[in-house]
Amino acid sequence: MTTEIARSPYTGAALGEYSTSHPDDVDHAVSAAATAAAEIANTAPSTIAGWLGAIADALVAHRDELAELADSETGLGMERLTGEVERAANQLRFYGSVAAEGSYLDATLDTSAAVIGRVQRPLGPIAVFGASNFPFAFGALGHDTGAAIASGNAVVAKGHPAHPGLSRRLGEIAVKALAGAGAPEATYGLVTGFEAGTQLVQHPGIKAVAFTGSERGGTALWRLANERAEVIPVYAEMGTVNAVAVTAAAAAARASEIARGFVESFTLGAGQFCTKPGLLLAPAGAGLAEAVGAAVAERPSGVLLTEAIANDCKAGVARLVENGATIISTGASAVAGWGAAATVLTVPAATLAKDSPLLAEVFGPVALVVEYADAEQLHAVIRELPGALAAGVHAEDAEDVTALVAALARNVGRVIYNGWPTGVATTWAQQHGGPWPATTVPAATSVGAAALQRFVRPVAYQDLPDAALPPALQDANPWGLPRRVNGAR
Amino acid sequence: MTTEIARSPYTGAALGEYSTSHPDDVDHAVSAAATAAAEIANTAPSTIAGWLGAIADALVAHRDELAELADSETGLGMERLTGEVERAANQLRFYGSVAAEGSYLDATLDTSAAVIGRVQRPLGPIAVFGASNFPFAFGALGHDTGAAIASGNAVVAKGHPAHPGLSRRLGEIAVKALAGAGAPEATYGLVTGFEAGTQLVQHPGIKAVAFTGSERGGTALWRLANERAEVIPVYAEMGTVNAVAVTAAAAAARASEIARGFVESFTLGAGQFCTKPGLLLAPAGAGLAEAVGAAVAERPSGVLLTEAIANDCKAGVARLVENGATIISTGASAVAGWGAAATVLTVPAATLAKDSPLLAEVFGPVALVVEYADAEQLHAVIRELPGALAAGVHAEDAEDVTALVAALARNVGRVIYNGWPTGVATTWAQQHGGPWPATTVPAATSVGAAALQRFVRPVAYQDLPDAALPPALQDANPWGLPRRVNGAR
Repeated sequence: MTTEIARSPYTGAALGEYSTSHPDDVDHAVSAAATAAAEIANTAPSTIAGWLGAIADALVAHRDELAELADSETGLGMERLTGEVERAANQLRFYGSVAAEGSYLDATLDTSAAVIGRVQRPLGPIAVFGASNFPFAFGALGHDTGAAIASGNAVVAKGHPAHPGLSRRLGEIAVKALAGAGAPEATYGLVTGFEAGTQLVQHPGIKAVAFTGSERGGTALWRLANERAEVIPVYAEMGTVNAVAVTAAAAAARASEIARGFVESFTLGAGQFCTKPGLLLAPAGAGLAEAVGAAVAERPSGVLLTEAIANDCKAGVARLVENGATIISTGASAVAGWGAAATVLTVPAATLAKDSPLLAEVFGPVALVVEYADAEQLHAVIRELPGALAAGVHAEDAEDVTALVAALARNVGRVIYNGWPTGVATTWAQQHGGPWPATTVPAATSVGAAALQRFVRPVAYQDLPDAALPPALQDANPWGLPRRVNGAR
Repeated sequence: MTTEIARSPYTGAALGEYSTSHPDDVDHAVSAAATAAAEIANTAPSTIAGWLGAIADALVAHRDELAELADSETGLGMERLTGEVERAANQLRFYGSVAAEGSYLDATLDTSAAVIGRVQRPLGPIAVFGASNFPFAFGALGHDTGAAIASGNAVVAKGHPAHPGLSRRLGEIAVKALAGAGAPEATYGLVTGFEAGTQLVQHPGIKAVAFTGSERGGTALWRLANERAEVIPVYAEMGTVNAVAVTAAAAAARASEIARGFVESFTLGAGQFCTKPGLLLAPAGAGLAEAVGAAVAERPSGVLLTEAIANDCKAGVARLVENGATIISTGASAVAGWGAAATVLTVPAATLAKDSPLLAEVFGPVALVVEYADAEQLHAVIRELPGALAAGVHAEDAEDVTALVAALARNVGRVIYNGWPTGVATTWAQQHGGPWPATTVPAATSVGAAALQRFVRPVAYQDLPDAALPPALQDANPWGLPRRVNGAR
């Protein structure tokens, strides 16, 4: 029997030991989820929204307890975590409202030749692998779980070993809230342990996988799923280096403001954001690198989520140095636990090249400043960047940034103007995904209304009797959904 | 230098020899397409619709010439091929109209907190691998090319070696029509040869692959793309066994009508349809198998597309027999060329199991009739079926087919009632794709309005100056697109 040990990032001390799921538990969780899935698939979206609302209410009711438990295991701080519980609750409500609005079903009817109705159908049980860095927003009850249930699926979540006590508590809360709201048993289940994760991805009953985490972890699950008899989609949102370009005019006008903003953004949550701006493209000679260095030197120390992440962060800095980067400045060192000092490095623009180790993510409060000589070199660097979740531009309003925005947009999912990528609002228009290796499916998003699209597939019904159609396509439109009829909406 | 030899399926005789693309030609085609792609990406959908209309007009203008050339290389017959040219032209116009309607761009604006605009952007040059069995509708100027150009992309198509002369002629016609319509040079390019196909999929400039053909071919390209540094989506629509279930009541009421319909459908185009009904699930003792056998015995012979397909078809029948199937009846044998006799076999229902060679597609005029004892056994067989493009139900109107439709829909992209799957209308509601191994991406479709979605990915623009936004998101909405603003449409 294997176990997971919870440890404090503040001290490294063991907090508790938890047994992980037995293979039979995993098998039972998937089988039960498959039974639930058949019932959920025929449930009105507005009813499902009520289930998600019940989980949201339960999260808020347990807010302080959850934030304290999370802080003990993640070291992310009470203020951030208290806010994140509220945020996670709001996300669940948002996905419920998107489901209830009904556009995600894309109900479409043609009556001209054959009578064909097409509607999105839930895929079946979804395996959700929560992230370490957002234990609520991207954890066992985070975006992926919200979007998967909202789109009519059952979820089997795999708890993250970096917060084993919290994962289990979230599982209990969800199961109780769903039962209270009248959802089918096993609409949500939680399993734990590395082996359970592998078993989930290989299980014939699982129909899609959602993952947030490292490129290594995400691509491993993706490869595993690609070896199945029935290959299934793996939506892995992985870490990337998000670049922010500063124009010469912006640097001349407000170098120290941009430097402060950059340092605050890349050290937020001890740099453990997948949207961390890992690369600042600064005009040479404008003093930006120096201003960033000065701001970094003043940063207090932070603790990282796990010992492995702390070690990887140190190794990442060493790798950057080995590959030609120079440390500009570091912040205060941690006195205990799994600390990491904020670190900013620089490298000549000409050394950046596709697949360079300089362009691999360092997870933690570490960033590169690269000085470019002119617009031509700036564009040359941008062409070498691998796919990323986000990119930014800092410019003056009088400038024409069309070409710069287009160059950055070519390889990312989101472009931010005069701001920083770390904040990701949960809205209809959000896109949190990008070209490989940002995500395994470039068109997918794990945040925003379109997140539901990952867990459904269309089925067309040709010439069927009305009663045998899914409710979304029946003549009476019992769920009151928006529909497109003969091409008109 | 490698070549492709065109041969007549009617006689096996060589019709001509064609040189295939040199690696430099492929590289040039992709580079030129990338240049074109940047321009097309900022072209109004209505303008692109005009380009597709110009290709459609050119196809119709060359209809008889093209059908004759196609018949000489494919043996599909003048009537079918003449109609298919018209159909292919209409498809291109349809995808243009879907683009012009603009919903596919999913333009979405949030103005509540951060101002975020999200719109679908073209992926870049798309590699299109045309099919052998529909030289116009799914060929070098077929559905995939239409949907890829409509969604703002450049296409590099790889011509199918089963109709080398026709592929090259279609390429010439498209290039000339696009030039006449004012499209950027290299909006469309054609390459030929097996090595060119491999090179295309591996080329860093190619951003997605569309393929229609065999499971072996499709999964090989998918594996190749999965080994790239930047993994890209491969939309492979592959052959499957499409099942049609007949209820006891329907068999009692109209066994011979159903038998005739089944035989006509599975022998259409010499059985070379990916939507061929390969498996009839018939109630035992209702005389359906006998009626099918009688109808097959009367079928004239047909010719298959290539010698390899003819050999594979014979081997497929032998494989079914080796695995326990019994031949019920065969039609007339071909006297010359690559003929195949219509063949229907049967096997006990209890022997069907997931991954059984009995459930692998035989490409050609070959089908299985399986008799089931009762509804329980029918559902047991359906649970064993692998993912497929389509499934059918034949029932009497007084029957409740809800459970049967739901069971079939679980594993296919389209369910047809009292009809046959071979006809696929190009409409807004169509779905031509299904769970693995029907397609590599179960939610994707290669036919219908949603086909455009395969070749775009969303980009969100946060707080950008209006002028730097793509036209679809600008305040003035210069393309007049439908947009969702703050959740409301």
